[in-house]
This record gives sequence, structure tokens and C-alpha cells, in this order.
Amino acid sequence: MNYRLESDSIGEKQVAKDAYYGVQSLRAAENFKITGLTIHKEFIKSLAEIKKATAITNNEVELLDKNIEQAIIKACDEIIEGKLHGEFIVDPIQGGAGTSMNMNANEVIANRAIEILGGEKGDYGIVHPNDHVNYGQSTNDVIPTAGKMTSLRLLTKAIGELTKLYEALEEKSKEFDNVIKMGRTQMQDAVPIRLGQEFKAYSAVIKRDILRLKKVTEELKVVNMGGTAIGTGINADKEYLDKIVPNLSDVSGLELKQASDLIDATQNLDGFVAVSSVIKTCAVNLSKIANDLRLMSSGPRTGFGEINLPEKQNGSSIMPGKINPVIPEVINQVAFNIIGNDITITMAAEAGQLELNAFEPVIFYNLFQSMETLANGVSTFVENCVLGITANEERCKHLVDNSVGIITAICPHVGYKKAAKVAKTAIKTGESVKELILKDGVLQEKELDEILNTVSMTEPGISAKHLLHK
Amino acid sequence: MNYRLESDSIGEKQVAKDAYYGVQSLRAAENFKITGLTIHKEFIKSLAEIKKATAITNNEVELLDKNIEQAIIKACDEIIEGKLHGEFIVDPIQGGAGTSMNMNANEVIANRAIEILGGEKGDYGIVHPNDHVNYGQSTNDVIPTAGKMTSLRLLTKAIGELTKLYEALEEKSKEFDNVIKMGRTQMQDAVPIRLGQEFKAYSAVIKRDILRLKKVTEELKVVNMGGTAIGTGINADKEYLDKIVPNLSDVSGLELKQASDLIDATQNLDGFVAVSSVIKTCAVNLSKIANDLRLMSSGPRTGFGEINLPEKQNGSSIMPGKINPVIPEVINQVAFNIIGNDITITMAAEAGQLELNAFEPVIFYNLFQSMETLANGVSTFVENCVLGITANEERCKHLVDNSVGIITAICPHVGYKKAAKVAKTAIKTGESVKELILKDGVLQEKELDEILNTVSMTEPGISAKHLLHK
Amino acid sequence: MNYRLESDSIGEKQVAKDAYYGVQSLRAAENFKITGLTIHKEFIKSLAEIKKATAITNNEVELLDKNIEQAIIKACDEIIEGKLHGEFIVDPIQGGAGTSMNMNANEVIANRAIEILGGEKGDYGIVHPNDHVNYGQSTNDVIPTAGKMTSLRLLTKAIGELTKLYEALEEKSKEFDNVIKMGRTQMQDAVPIRLGQEFKAYSAVIKRDILRLKKVTEELKVVNMGGTAIGTGINADKEYLDKIVPNLSDVSGLELKQASDLIDATQNLDGFVAVSSVIKTCAVNLSKIANDLRLMSSGPRTGFGEINLPEKQNGSSIMPGKINPVIPEVINQVAFNIIGNDITITMAAEAGQLELNAFEPVIFYNLFQSMETLANGVSTFVENCVLGITANEERCKHLVDNSVGIITAICPHVGYKKAAKVAKTAIKTGESVKELILKDGVLQEKELDEILNTVSMTEPGISAKHLLHK
Amino acid sequence: MNYRLESDSIGEKQVAKDAYYGVQSLRAAENFKITGLTIHKEFIKSLAEIKKATAITNNEVELLDKNIEQAIIKACDEIIEGKLHGEFIVDPIQGGAGTSMNMNANEVIANRAIEILGGEKGDYGIVHPNDHVNYGQSTNDVIPTAGKMTSLRLLTKAIGELTKLYEALEEKSKEFDNVIKMGRTQMQDAVPIRLGQEFKAYSAVIKRDILRLKKVTEELKVVNMGGTAIGTGINADKEYLDKIVPNLSDVSGLELKQASDLIDATQNLDGFVAVSSVIKTCAVNLSKIANDLRLMSSGPRTGFGEINLPEKQNGSSIMPGKINPVIPEVINQVAFNIIGNDITITMAAEAGQLELNAFEPVIFYNLFQSMETLANGVSTFVENCVLGITANEERCKHLVDNSVGIITAICPHVGYKKAAKVAKTAIKTGESVKELILKDGVLQEKELDEILNTVSMTEPGISAKHLLHK
Repeated sequence: MNYRLESDSIGEKQVAKDAYYGVQSLRAAENFKITGLTIHKEFIKSLAEIKKATAITNNEVELLDKNIEQAIIKACDEIIEGKLHGEFIVDPIQGGAGTSMNMNANEVIANRAIEILGGEKGDYGIVHPNDHVNYGQSTNDVIPTAGKMTSLRLLTKAIGELTKLYEALEEKSKEFDNVIKMGRTQMQDAVPIRLGQEFKAYSAVIKRDILRLKKVTEELKVVNMGGTAIGTGINADKEYLDKIVPNLSDVSGLELKQASDLIDATQNLDGFVAVSSVIKTCAVNLSKIANDLRLMSSGPRTGFGEINLPEKQNGSSIMPGKINPVIPEVINQVAFNIIGNDITITMAAEAGQLELNAFEPVIFYNLFQSMETLANGVSTFVENCVLGITANEERCKHLVDNSVGIITAICPHVGYKKAAKVAKTAIKTGESVKELILKDGVLQEKELDEILNTVSMTEPGISAKHLLHK
Repeated sequence: MNYRLESDSIGEKQVAKDAYYGVQSLRAAENFKITGLTIHKEFIKSLAEIKKATAITNNEVELLDKNIEQAIIKACDEIIEGKLHGEFIVDPIQGGAGTSMNMNANEVIANRAIEILGGEKGDYGIVHPNDHVNYGQSTNDVIPTAGKMTSLRLLTKAIGELTKLYEALEEKSKEFDNVIKMGRTQMQDAVPIRLGQEFKAYSAVIKRDILRLKKVTEELKVVNMGGTAIGTGINADKEYLDKIVPNLSDVSGLELKQASDLIDATQNLDGFVAVSSVIKTCAVNLSKIANDLRLMSSGPRTGFGEINLPEKQNGSSIMPGKINPVIPEVINQVAFNIIGNDITITMAAEAGQLELNAFEPVIFYNLFQSMETLANGVSTFVENCVLGITANEERCKHLVDNSVGIITAICPHVGYKKAAKVAKTAIKTGESVKELILKDGVLQEKELDEILNTVSMTEPGISAKHLLHK
Repeated sequence: MNYRLESDSIGEKQVAKDAYYGVQSLRAAENFKITGLTIHKEFIKSLAEIKKATAITNNEVELLDKNIEQAIIKACDEIIEGKLHGEFIVDPIQGGAGTSMNMNANEVIANRAIEILGGEKGDYGIVHPNDHVNYGQSTNDVIPTAGKMTSLRLLTKAIGELTKLYEALEEKSKEFDNVIKMGRTQMQDAVPIRLGQEFKAYSAVIKRDILRLKKVTEELKVVNMGGTAIGTGINADKEYLDKIVPNLSDVSGLELKQASDLIDATQNLDGFVAVSSVIKTCAVNLSKIANDLRLMSSGPRTGFGEINLPEKQNGSSIMPGKINPVIPEVINQVAFNIIGNDITITMAAEAGQLELNAFEPVIFYNLFQSMETLANGVSTFVENCVLGITANEERCKHLVDNSVGIITAICPHVGYKKAAKVAKTAIKTGESVKELILKDGVLQEKELDEILNTVSMTEPGISAKHLLHK
Repeated sequence: MNYRLESDSIGEKQVAKDAYYGVQSLRAAENFKITGLTIHKEFIKSLAEIKKATAITNNEVELLDKNIEQAIIKACDEIIEGKLHGEFIVDPIQGGAGTSMNMNANEVIANRAIEILGGEKGDYGIVHPNDHVNYGQSTNDVIPTAGKMTSLRLLTKAIGELTKLYEALEEKSKEFDNVIKMGRTQMQDAVPIRLGQEFKAYSAVIKRDILRLKKVTEELKVVNMGGTAIGTGINADKEYLDKIVPNLSDVSGLELKQASDLIDATQNLDGFVAVSSVIKTCAVNLSKIANDLRLMSSGPRTGFGEINLPEKQNGSSIMPGKINPVIPEVINQVAFNIIGNDITITMAAEAGQLELNAFEPVIFYNLFQSMETLANGVSTFVENCVLGITANEERCKHLVDNSVGIITAICPHVGYKKAAKVAKTAIKTGESVKELILKDGVLQEKELDEILNTVSMTEPGISAKHLLHK
């Protein structure tokens, strides 16, 4: 016989004999065939860390025998090392606030612990998924805590990649500091700027994103372990309540804190919305930078042509030699995806009712994806795009020299109205601004050259202030 | 004394003596000071039309005396003509599924009817807001019906403006049919296209939007009048039930149909989501067109410079002579706003519970705004932008002639790999594709000229197919 | 040596010797490690069908040799049967408008065809990914076409599941037609309704969703094959242009039509937005139904307790005997996810520029997920929830009999004001509405019993109209 | 003649003789008839404060004559006091990054200053909108700065209202601290909780929102005055650059700081996304609380009936005596609207290009609305709902006493499996948990009473731990 018979409140059910999961995991897997995917590896590890820390704590407060504690710890350690992940069979999008994920962990750990103690899988008299592995816990404190632990780790990774991006942009801002180019507002020629200044602005906005992400990370450190079913701590030993979070911090190496109001912390998922929102804000900035790079590298012959992105792959199956800005394009897509995920997370968080929000699974699914695609997207952005960008210095200079936008520097000297008239004539006739102003006779060539210095136009200060006709 | 005393279930309350609204409107106005705005004029008119049609119908089925019916009709006609709108004092975002809006209408009409019958405002023994004006109705059939009537009219207006846009784009597509320019994919030079073809594609997508909007209009014609409180038709006379929608169609001039399942039609607002979604889809297309126009008109000296948008206002307070694509920019903003509104509408529709969705007010507020800003945005887009667009034909031709993208036409003759090599060399050395191919010796100049005809590249067919080396 | 050397415009690169994919797939896989997932199986099949149809067509128009055509067809057939899917190594979220997916298909098919013709993988002189497999095509017509074909199939499946849901709801509406229960608006007691009427309303809204989905399916049938790079049909033989879509219809069994404006059809992805929007609208309705079921089954002792959902799994790891509405909850989550996906799709569609929208990959990733999770969610909803719902008939009746909401039926007989007063007294004192009205003496007990018939309250008509004191 | 003739780059145009606005405002008003609304009063004041501060600073650095400075200051002071607001005629949704709003301010101030100096409106030789009022500025530093100043004030008001809500919830949490009621998870009976604990959790989450809002307020204090056109500070005197922000802080009373990277601060609007996101997160929490209140007050006879909301208005036009939870319902609607606004703001921020984001107007329109409706919604929530909530203590107790959920407390004593069996029997037979456990004989009545103490179930600790059969 390849099956063992297990039972729960619903009734009896066959479970594959060599399965570490049990009847409850199996029912959940059958009830929720939604995405066809499985739960995140980091989440599985976080669950195992929680079960390990609760076993230790329950033993410390004399509610769990030493030998059972030791077996549970060993089982958990194996999962933390990456083993038994195939036994986690439930879909990441599932009804029930994560009870299925929690029970999947409880059953796998119980069965492995039973084995360790010399028993046979399914012999829950030895180690019971609920009465031992889940002792003093509830899905409602375990699952949000595991979600925060996983988020902490994934977000830390994303921050690491963003830091590399920040550094790459800083580096480029120095490299391009002498490249004078045309600044554009609303896609129309404005006034000169240096390419390095543009990259410096990109680095500044990414730095701000990193800062925001680091700040919001604090929200993820506050967990509700000990709150049990609804945050009131029913069936949680008082001593356990004090010890569980420090113990979990030790086991996981994360600096976790216990929420001051466990009822609030059990029912409200606003912390995940806050985190997702900051990721979304970062996505907005990344997408804007990607758009700029695509604009500035447009061409090679019929676009702006100011910069070159590294060539990473053939751009077309039909147009030979075409190279496309594929890396910035994937950044845009990651950003759009993150923004959509944020709406899902927002709606799911809003839908909580009374003592619990049952929609954590879809929040985690989306939030983990946002964090990972952010990290992965930024990683390829740095490696395969930003670091290899080069400037077409001459082309940039040529565009500035032929532009009408430099008229702005003359404005303080001749007034807005006259300057506007000169600009319009220049655009219409193709004459240069300088020629037209000289023709006008208000300013001398020497003065004008001073005013029209494009480098000084890229820094504060009124060109040739001493000449001002106030 | 400047006040009269009115009372409702909550208690007594002073109402300004000359006010046509009554105690319930006043309480609502005090409870909901949310946006500071008032309800839409078209919505007020729709409410008056409903009250008129129900008075007529109730009289026909002998549930309302002729003289009261006549007074109500007269009061409604005045509102339909635009009078008494100042008496509608409730905020468009309000709790209560629109009961406040409905009662505001009931009270204004009752008081005006009382006056017409020679009574004094507040003497509801003559005409009662609930027992006469609202007879056989409920907020829950009146308000969604008024929302659909208003939407029908606003959407019709928007479709009218989109039709003008379609025509303008068609016109431009003919005007620009001979302007050869470079096509771009992913912002990189692709293969030649005619500017007229681009405008034709814009007209095609707007035509599709118009078609979608017309189709979805059908959803707005299905109303739930007669369903009363929860769609079961409690307290609605059976004969009234059959007559009310035809009568309302007569009064309003709209082709309304009664929903086949009034319970469904009372509790589900998916029709508004469907309409908003189609508007959103249209917004996506408008925004894409606006983006293209901003790209193609970028410059005047340092951008694509392929087209010119009409100059509508000074572009800058500091940069003289600068003209910006302000009209396309407002289209983008209208689109972003519509997309945000769609989310609000979606969430509000999802939040319905059991026999009713109480969140109609916020849906209407957003939907009406989407429709009106769509109509208004498109109107200025046509008048102040599209119709005045001109092409820089020479610049367009110049860009094509200097591009490498025309290599694509050579590809079938020499194979992808060799073509790609030529393209890369051309980009690197600045040599023309033609020179390089000739140097290579595979094709003769005459053959090559045939292949490189840029006009024929803008139509299907392999250039010089007879020359193909299969 | 386990590697072969391949080269493209970027340079040379080692490819695993037994790999069917080639250098371009490999570069793409390295450039885009975003989600860690692979492209959808249905999408791979659609690509193979397109490549098969184009090979057939190219041979028909004498642009592809018979033996190469036959080899390509055989390779495609294998993929259609489900083979070689492991060779599709690119991430579903990728830069470049799907060039990587298209080239992955081209390379796998070329290498398999080479083998079939007796050559060795990598010997592209025999069958070339671009010059043969991709002949007459571009990523820009292949990828959107494959996206539509995949969508058609996934959507058809979802419609099938929704049809089962519709039938289940219809069945339940009949089963529950005699269960009188309290209707509620804004969560407050309203007037009586029959449970069957509620389920009938659910079936009505799902029927409407199915109708909308079927209509919007038409948008997916219009493909741009033959448009090649930018819709102008460059390098597409004219005869091929006429034959390709009919041939593709034959190969795929789908009723496809060629877009009337191929330029429009290449650059605009509004059709996908339209489809996603209709799915989103359906999600709104499903979520509302799920919310209702959760409300009506709330309890068992302290909630509404009107219906019972089938027990599918233990509800809690800490609270014994607790059963939760896990299936409706997963419907809510699927809905939230779909609504978020719709935003991603909307933003990606808006971001198209000029001749192409480069963001198809993220659109497909989200759209396919929306379709599949819709189908899967609805499937479990029907099987594991709706079909097994039972009614607590007595409880329902008890609530109606004790409710004050039945006062509404008395309103036409005594007027709103008096009725309101009775209602308030009843709520305050706990007396029944009937007692209070009798005490008042306006109506006789016999009349009152006629008026207060709760069954007739669930249908149109004024109870005891003949008694009306007009 | 009622008109004066003004001219700009576009040409001549008649302006109403007594208008303070000029030709550029008029063109903008004609170009953008989008919402039919006007710009926010606080925004107008912020603009006037900026113009005042720049006049002061320009005079200090000797770039503006004293008499012109004084006239400008006087004009600005009038606007700050609330005068001349009717002269601001441009639509809040407008193309052009706010140039129209900036020029509207420049023109009104110039014309008023001209009058003050004894001239006639339109005589810009005396005070010029660009050369004097806008001196040293650009739309691109003025408008984002005004947006931040306005946001600071509106947000401060919203925080004030949220603080009142926090206090009201705290107060209620104390008032209800002894009301034992059933806790529910996933709408199913869970374990006992005290109503005061629930309100304490609400106060905790609002406190967190306040904290987040205060933190994010810092983002709004960083302004880019001095950056002029694109953040490079072209035409801004260096001394002016140092003085303008301190001077603006003085004038406005706000603690503003100059951005460290003015180029970044000019082109990136992520700060507004960050602020909107925190408001959105708060909206999620408010909506959840509103949902809970609607659930708990559902009834009066057929719902949960645990609490009563204050009666604020008649709930129905057809159902007498019906009172609905209209205030929580408006909170839900405000929340949905804010969440939609956040998407608009997100998309607009993402759409910035190169040196500027031209979509500030739609961002401000939505952000100001989010802030104001938040403040207004919360204000009515506190006054008209929260403060007046009462508890149905007996009903709450009755529900707990009859519930099966209390079995959870017995679980540690008898194990999950036996407890689950008892629970199932209790639900099926209607017997009480206590009876069933006694019948079973495992626990004595005295022990059981200790374990089943519902008050101790609402606090951490295992009931009757000393009795545990470990």
C-alpha cells in the first residue's frame, strides 16, 4: 500500500506514504489550484525558523518535552538548509489567511520529527502538528510574522542592488561631468546642462529611494508572535509571550520586535501596504530614468543620439543591425508590474474584517514578486546597461550650439519680450541667436560671448551680471 | 422668523424659510462636507425627469391625484429647464447610496409643488416628499437610473467629440500621405513609413474606441425603475411596473429598457465598471497618441522635429520663445485621471453587499468626471492641436535618407547576417548603406536603387522580388 | 567539448552542444533574470503554429524550398505536441517587445529542422532562424499574434468555467426559491427576499459577464500577421500577405482575421486592455458574490447564519472545529490580483511609442495569469463551494419574522411618517410591528395579515392594494 | 471700450479692461476647459507668498527696485488675505507644467502692483509679469514649491483631524473595556475579545498613520526654489539662491529647506507619490475600520447588532424607520477615491521626461483632493459617528455565551483533535461546549469554569495552566 490514512475534522483521506505533508496540506493543495506555483523558498525558511523558535521557547517555559523540542529543531534546521521544500505543496494564492501554509509546515515538521524520533510518518501521537509543532501559535501570528521575515530579507537584497545602481550612477555622473548637452523640458529645447548633472540627479533620486526603503524596513521588524488567534494571546503562556520574539530574533538573525498592540498587529496589514508603496515610488523613479535613457539613446541616426547603451542582443528578427534599449525596457516593465501589484496589495489590505485579514496570501505573493523583480531588474540594469553607457560628446555639443534655448541667458539683459522675438525669428529663419542679437546692436560681441558661455549656463548665477541693464 | 420647523425620524430641525429643500437635505449637507462641490447638473435634471415620469405613471394607475401629479410635473419641468439647481445642496460624495440626493429632489419638488398648489413650503400635507413625490420608488431604483441617464448623455457628448477627432485624424492622414519619414520601434530607427500612415493608424484606433463606446452605451440603457427597495418591487404597483420605463423614455427622450432581473440590477454596478473601463481604454489610446505627437514635435532644434504643433501659448515664464506641446500634455493628464477614476469605480463596485451597493455616489462622481474631461480634453485636442499640425517634410526625408534602417529591404537579397554586418559598419563609419553594399559587389547599383526605393518600403511586397537570390 | 560556438551581431558565444536554442536565446536568458519563470506553454504552442503557418505560406508563394518547409513543419508539430518546451529559456518579463521569445522559437525550430534534415545543431546554412524560420515575419507581427491566440484559448477556458458557475447558480436559485429571508441594504434590515432570488441575481450577473467576455473575444481574433516590422508589410510578399491569416486559422483551428490597418494593429495594444478590463469587471462581480456568501454564512453562532458553505478543510491551527469560507476567500484574492494586473496592462499599453509597443511581455504575463487564475478560481468555486451550499431555512424565517423591515409594506397604507414612528418604537421596545399597528387601530388584524404576507413582499405589487387609503 | 489689447509671442488679444489677469492667463483659460473648476485657494496663496519672497530677495540682492518690490509685496499680501482669487481663471488640469498657473499669478500681481504704483492695468512697462514678478524664477521651481507648500498645509489639517479620531477611539476603547464580545476571524466565530480592545486596535492603527504622515511631511519641506528652468539655476543670482528659501520660510511661516540637488528636485515628483502613498495607506485603514463598524452595527434585528452608530439621517425614502451607517459609508468612498487618486499621481509622476515633469497640475489636483477629503471625511467620522457609538453589552455577552469558539481555551487541556470533535458536535446538536466536555468526563466542572472564563480568554496566558495535562 502506497498510502497512509489520515483524518481531520472533515474526515479521512489517503496521503502518499512517503509524503511529509499530511491530510491538511493535501486538502489545501486540492482546494487551491490557482497559480500552479508553490510558496516562496524564503517564506518556507521563515516558517521553519518560527517553528524552531517556538519549540525552543515552549521548552523553556516547560510546555514542550526536551526530546520533542530537539526533534522539531532538527527538522526545522533541515528545512532552513533547503531540504524538504518539495513537501510544501500548497499554492501561494489560497483562501484562509495562510492556515494551509502554516499547517503544511506543521505537518512536514511533525512528520520529519516523528521520523527523527524513530516513528513512522503519520503517527502524530509522537509529534502532533497542532499540539506540538504549532503549540502556543496560530496561523494568525505565524503567517504575518513569516511574511515580514521574508520581506525583510528580500527587501534587503533589493536595497543592495539599488545601492549598486546608486554607485554606478554616481560614477557615471563624474565621468560625464564635462559633457555639455541640451536640457529639455516638455520635450522642447530648454537650456544647457551637463550630462554628468543629469546622472547626478538620477543618483540623487535613487539615494532617496534607498533611504525611504531603509526607513520603511522598520515596519517589517514589528511582529505579532504571541498574539495567537486574534492578538489577545489566548493559549499563549505569559512567559512564552516575553521570550518568543527575542528567541526568534536569535534563530533568524533578524532584529525583530514584538508589536505593542498585538490585536492591531494581527488584524491590520497596513505595514505591507506601506512597504509596497515605497517600492512603487522607487519603481516610478526607475521607470522615469529608463525612459530618459531610451530617449537620449534614440537613434542611432534619427533620434536624439546623445548617449549609447551597451549592445546586449540583436534587436530585431527582421531588421538587421538593429539594437534596442532592451534593458531599460525591462525596467519599465518591472515598474508597471510593481505598480499593479501595489493595487492588489492595497485592495487586499482594505478587505480585512474584524480580528483578521484573510487575504495575506495574495499580498505576500505580490509583495515578494515586487521585491524580487525589483532586485533582479536593477541588477541587470546596473550590469548590462548603466555601467556601459557612453556619451556622444560631439553630437551633444553640436545640438547645444545650434539651439535657440540659449536665448534664456540673454533674457535678463534685454527683457523677456525682446528675447522672445529674437527666439521666434531664429527658429523661423534658421539664423543663430548670436547673429540676431548682434544685428540688433544692444549688446557687443564680447559681452555676448560672455553671456552665451554654455558652461556657465549650467550653474547658478546670471551670466555677465555686471552687464545687467537693470 | 426666517426659519420653518421640519421634522423627520431623527427629530426637529430649523430649515431656512425660503428653502425648497427640507430637513433631510439639510441633515445630509451637514453630515457630508466632503468635496465642497455640488451634484452634477445633468444628474439633477435626470432626477427631475424620473420624478415627472413616476408622477405621470402613478396617476395613470390611479395612485396619485391629478392635481398633485400636475403640480409635481410643473415643478419637475422647472428643474429640467435649469431652475432651482441651487436648492440641491448635498455633496456629490455622500454616504447612503444616494438617499440624500433622492430626498433632496423629493423635498425640492414637493415644496415647489406645494407652492404651485397654493400652499406654503413645508406643508407636506399638500404634497409629501415620500408619500407623493417618491411614491412607488426607492433611492435604490431612482439613483442608479438617474446615474445611467446622466452617463448616457455625457457619454454621447464624449463620443461626439471623439468623432470629430477621428475626422480630424482622417483628414490629416490624407494631407500627410506623401510625407516619407522614418518609422521607429523602441525609439530606434526602424524602416520608412509615411506620416499619413501614422495618422491613419491614429484614426483607426480612435474609430475602434468610438465603436467600443457605442457598444457599451447599451449597458447604460438598462434601468431598474420599478425594483424599488431591493429589486423585488415591493410597494410597486404591477401596472406601474410595466409603464414606468416607457414613460421615462418618453419624458427623457432616451431609449431606456427595464432590466430583466431587477434584483440583479439593483445590487450590481458592474455596468458602470464596464463603461469606465472602455473610457479608460480610450484614454490609453489618446495618451499614446499625445505621447507620439510630443515626440515627433520635439525640438525645435534638438529633437525629432518631424512635425509642428500649433502654437497656443507662451511655453515658459523664463525661457523666451519657448513653445510647449501643452494640448497633448493635457490629454495625458486627462488620461491619467481617468485611469485613476477607473480604480475608484472598480473598488466601489466591488464593495457592494447583498441587496445594494451603497457606493454609487463616488462612482458617479468619478464616472461623470471621466466622461466630461474626456469630452473636454478631446475637444481642445481637435481644435487647438490636431487640426493645426504641420509636417516638416524635408526634415523627415533627410532623416530617412541618412538612416541605416533601410537595410531591412536588402535583407531578403543578401541574408540577415550579411545585412547586419553592413548595418553595423554603416553606423560605425558613417558610410551609407548603399555605398557599402555596392562596395561588396553582390548587387548592382540599378538593382539596389530599385530595392532601396523608400516609398515602396512603406507598402507590403518585397522590393525587387524578381531579384531575390532564394 | 560540450559547447558549440555561435555568433550574432554582438559577437561569438558558447552554446551548450545539445541545446536547441541558440546564441540569441542564451543572451536573452542572461539579460533577463527577472521572474525566474518561463513563458507560457500555450504561448509556445502558438508560436509554433505561427511558424508552421508561415512556412506553409512561404512555400506556397515560392519563397521557401519544400524540404526546408517540411522540416520546419515537423519541428513545429513536435512543439505543438508539447515537446522541446524546456528549450524555451527566456523569462516572460523581458525587454525588447518579445524579440527574445520570437528568436527563441526561431532558433529551436531551426535547430530541430536542421537535425531532421540530417545536419548538426548550429549549422544554420541548412535552416536559418531568421532567413528561413522567421521569413516574411517580424517579432512585431508574430508576438502580438501569438499573444492573441494564447489569450483566445485561455479565455475560452475561463468562459467555460464561468458557464459552469452560471449553471450552478441557476440550479441553486431554483433549489432556494422558497427560502424566505431578510433582504439587507447597507447591512441594515430592509425587506424580505427569497434566497433563490438572490442566487438568481448572481446567475444574472455572471451571465452578463459571460456575454461581455464572448463579445470582447472578437477583439482577440484580429491579428496583424503580414505587417512585419511596423505594419507597412515591408519584406512581406503580397500573396503571402493574403494567405497567411487563413493558413494560420487552418493550422490553429482558431477563426482569425487580418487587421484592416496593420500599422494600427502593430503599435496599439488596446485590444488587450479591453479584454483585461472585461475580466476585471467579471472579477468585481465574483468578489461581490464571494463577499455575500461569506456574510450570509457568517457564524455559525454569532453571525448571519443563513447559509452553510461546504466544509473543505480545517479552518484554524489553534481553534478546533473552526471552518472558514476558504473558497470564497480565494475568489476575493483572485479578483484583487486581476484588478492589479489590469493596472499593469493599462500602464504598459499606454507606454507604447510610435510604431510599436515594446511592453507586450509584461502585458502577456499579467493577462495570461488573469485568465488562468480566473478559470482556476471559478472552477474550485463551483466544485468546492457553490454546488454544496445549503440553506438554514428556519433561521432565515425566524429573522424575517422578528424584523422591523416589514413595516415597508404597511407604508402605503399609513404613510411614511407614521410608519417610521412605528418602526422606531418597535426597535426600541422590542414589540412587533404587527402588535403596534393593531394597537394603533388604523388597520384590522385580517387586513394586516394580508399586508404582512412576507411571500408577497418578495414580488412586485402593493400588498392589499384594495385596502389603500389613497 | 471694455477691452485692453495685450500681446505675447502668439500675438495680440483683447483682455477685459478690468481684469487683473492678462493675455497669457486668458489663452490658458481658453485652451484648457477641462474640469470647469479653478485652482485651489491655498495654492493661490502659496503662489503669492513665493512671489512676495522672491520680490524681497531680488531687492535684497539689488536686482529689483524698492518701489516695485513694495508694490509687488502689497499685491501679494492682498492675495494672501483672500482677495483677487476670482482673477485666477485657469483650470486646475492644464498642459504645460503649471506655466499657466504661474503666469496667472505673475499677471494678476503685476497688474495690481501697476495700479498700486498709479498705473493702468496692462501697462507692463511699470511692473512686468516676467521681468519683475517672475524675476529669477521659472514655472519649474515656483510651481512644485507652491505645490509642496499647499500640501504641507492641507496635510497638517488632515493630521489634525486624524489626531481627533485617534483620541475619540482611545476614549471609546476605555469606555468599552468591559464589554466582552465574540472575536471573529474570516467572519467566523473565533474567541472572545473586549470591545474596548477592538477600539484600542483602531486607535493604534490610526496612531501609526499619523506617525507615517508626520514623517512623510518632511519630504514636502524640501523645495527647489532657485533652480529656475531646469535646476541648474540659470539666471538665478547666486546670493539670491542662498536667501530665497529662508525668506520664503519667513514669509510663509513654513520650515522649508532647499533641495541639495536642484536638478533632481526639479524633474522628479516622487515626493508627491510618497505622500500620496502614505495617505492611501491611511485610507486603507480607515476603510477597514468603517467596514468593521458597519458589520458590528448590522441589524438592528437580523445582523450582528453589537454596537449602535448615532442616527444621523433617515436611511431610506421607501423603508420607514430605517437608519443606515451613512458616515462610515462616506469614509469608504473617500478611501476609494484616494486610492484612485494615488494611481493617477503615480502615473503622472512616472511620465516625467528628462529635465521636467510636465504633469504636476493633475498631480496637485488629485493630491489636494485626497488631503482635503481625508480631513473632511475624518472630521465627520469623529463628530457624527465615532463619538456617539454605543455598545449593546447584553447582546455581545449573549453571543459569546452561546458560541462554540470558546472551545479554543479547552484545547491545551484535551488536545486539538478531541476539542475539534466536541466543537463539531456542539454546532450540530446545539449543545453547549461545557455540557459536552462535562459529559466526556475529562475535566471537572470547577476546572472547566476556570478554563472557560471569557474575561481571561481576552488576555495572554493559558487558562488554568496549572491543570494542563502535558
